[in-house]
Amino acid sequence: MITIDVRSAAGDYPVLIGSGVLDDISELSARIVGRPPRSVVTDAVVARLHAHRVAAALDVDPIVLAGGESNKRWSAVETSCRRWLADGLDRSSIVLALGGGIVTDTVGFAAATYLRGIAWIAAPTTLLGMVDAAVGGKTGVNLPEGKNLVGAFWPPALVVADTDTLATLPPRELRAGLAEVVKAAWISDHSLLDLVPVGADIGYDSLTKSGWVEMVARSIRIKSEIVADDEREAGLRKSLNLGHTLGHALEAATDYRRFLHGEAVAWGLEAAALLGRRHGVLSAHGEQELRSAAQRLGPRPAIDDLDPERVCRFIATDKKRDAQGVAWVLPTDDGVVLDQRVETSEAIEVMRELQRG
Amino acid sequence: MITIDVRSAAGDYPVLIGSGVLDDISELSARIVGRPPRSVVTDAVVARLHAHRVAAALDVDPIVLAGGESNKRWSAVETSCRRWLADGLDRSSIVLALGGGIVTDTVGFAAATYLRGIAWIAAPTTLLGMVDAAVGGKTGVNLPEGKNLVGAFWPPALVVADTDTLATLPPRELRAGLAEVVKAAWISDHSLLDLVPVGADIGYDSLTKSGWVEMVARSIRIKSEIVADDEREAGLRKSLNLGHTLGHALEAATDYRRFLHGEAVAWGLEAAALLGRRHGVLSAHGEQELRSAAQRLGPRPAIDDLDPERVCRFIATDKKRDAQGVAWVLPTDDGVVLDQRVETSEAIEVMRELQRG
Repeated sequence: MITIDVRSAAGDYPVLIGSGVLDDISELSARIVGRPPRSVVTDAVVARLHAHRVAAALDVDPIVLAGGESNKRWSAVETSCRRWLADGLDRSSIVLALGGGIVTDTVGFAAATYLRGIAWIAAPTTLLGMVDAAVGGKTGVNLPEGKNLVGAFWPPALVVADTDTLATLPPRELRAGLAEVVKAAWISDHSLLDLVPVGADIGYDSLTKSGWVEMVARSIRIKSEIVADDEREAGLRKSLNLGHTLGHALEAATDYRRFLHGEAVAWGLEAAALLGRRHGVLSAHGEQELRSAAQRLGPRPAIDDLDPERVCRFIATDKKRDAQGVAWVLPTDDGVVLDQRVETSEAIEVMRELQRG
Repeated sequence: MITIDVRSAAGDYPVLIGSGVLDDISELSARIVGRPPRSVVTDAVVARLHAHRVAAALDVDPIVLAGGESNKRWSAVETSCRRWLADGLDRSSIVLALGGGIVTDTVGFAAATYLRGIAWIAAPTTLLGMVDAAVGGKTGVNLPEGKNLVGAFWPPALVVADTDTLATLPPRELRAGLAEVVKAAWISDHSLLDLVPVGADIGYDSLTKSGWVEMVARSIRIKSEIVADDEREAGLRKSLNLGHTLGHALEAATDYRRFLHGEAVAWGLEAAALLGRRHGVLSAHGEQELRSAAQRLGPRPAIDDLDPERVCRFIATDKKRDAQGVAWVLPTDDGVVLDQRVETSEAIEVMRELQRG
């Protein structure tokens, strides 16, 4: 088991990464947070796969939320809070979010608002959830206008990432999660790229158990160092948006139905590589390296049929805008550069270039 | 104009109390917060009375929420956030909540969650809003199970209390608000009791303009000192719950229809006085003094017909419970004492005593 301590203004918290660590959740919670969780919240898929052993160990009846991005909304927060009230949870109670990023974002936000804030534990069961969603303190739900438009900075008291749960993840989701690993590696640990499995048939068997633990841990370490230095995204944390500007727009333009988040990010990484080259901050070799790192994750849904002008209109309404317009994070040969102004016309050109292949 | 600086972990903020200060809201906001509000949110009653001059000064079209406790719920938060999105508000935007405690609690919570938190200004237009709701950083909305069960600690960047707005307040609301002044005075400034107008016909004319400013300012100062020392209610802040344990139960038992909050608190102050005497922490003279301070605020809805056992069951479900059961704040001769265990049977007896008059 690898432990990474994340610094946070709201209180530091440990991230435990290991094979089978969920089996010890009751003991780990008691030892680290002082008491076991009073509630487990999950979704239907994870309930079937993993919730039984967690809930049994904790002797609680899990709350099962409807899964999927379209259910990441306030009603799920309210469902959790009302069950917590019915079960008598008070301000000293701890709750456990067990699932992917949608579950941890939603339940983290519920914990942030229930009785104005209670402690929570994140137990991510997807690769994306482990390397991205569960660390950093961002919680929230969607509005009809877009993703994560309401939420809170409310870091968990503990993160338990059991890499064994990745064995049950559909390969497509596993590959999508690897796009965030590639992103993290590019930002500050290029040698991590060597650990990322490649090919069209990436699966859980592509790495050993300890290989998954190491890759997840190194990805989390990168993110944890960035968010510790800039929890509320005044500057450095923006680097984590590498690949996300076009990525979010692609997701929004297809109503979040065509791409898994990581697949859209993989396209976004390629777009950022092209723009980095155009802006003179990335070498031709660097452009090639980043694009092929994204491409080596295997096939992803096409963008050929999408209208670049329409897609890029979604960039302008992304919440990362500020009073000065849309700023991109662009890759350099050894990391990223922030706040690069990219005109919409240029974004459209780059998307056309990606469509040509 | 009187300025009180409130210390807060999230950043200190000033409270400005004065006659006519709302007229200068644009300039005050620009000077103190750095820029004027991009949005004004209010309710229908306040929109008619005050929003026009504020909105005109700021050149914005106010967002008008449905008023009343039953509308203090997430849908009002979502309405505000979606309008802010449509109006292009970003993370650097500031919003203004103009109205009573329901408006400032709801809009403060919307500000706490919009894009994971933006700055807000509270402009309370009721006495209760000025002396209680707008200071201290508690925001939130109701769930079907009870009041303020979801929310956030999210202090405003500025509070502007224009005591002239009290001239438009129905006398019953004015009297109800005075119950919170009596509470604050009892906690730590007994001489403030001498400023509180008395009698069945209390109205705005019962005090001079500067009398209102002084009384409101002294009440806010008491609250601000308490919340600065204990923002998240680990201890001292509980003292502000004086009179609220039975008060909340009376409101809940009558579906929030019979009593204004301050009226229920006035009953709660009397109950706390009786219990203080019973527990030996308050003298007979103190009991008499506190009860008559509450009674001098004039008539309030009766409790004769309510079943004390039923009312007191609502105490046990109040969110101020902790793992050890229900703790009351009880008055002493020169302040309050926290965490006094009161058995339900004793609370019932005291309510029966109040019913006998």
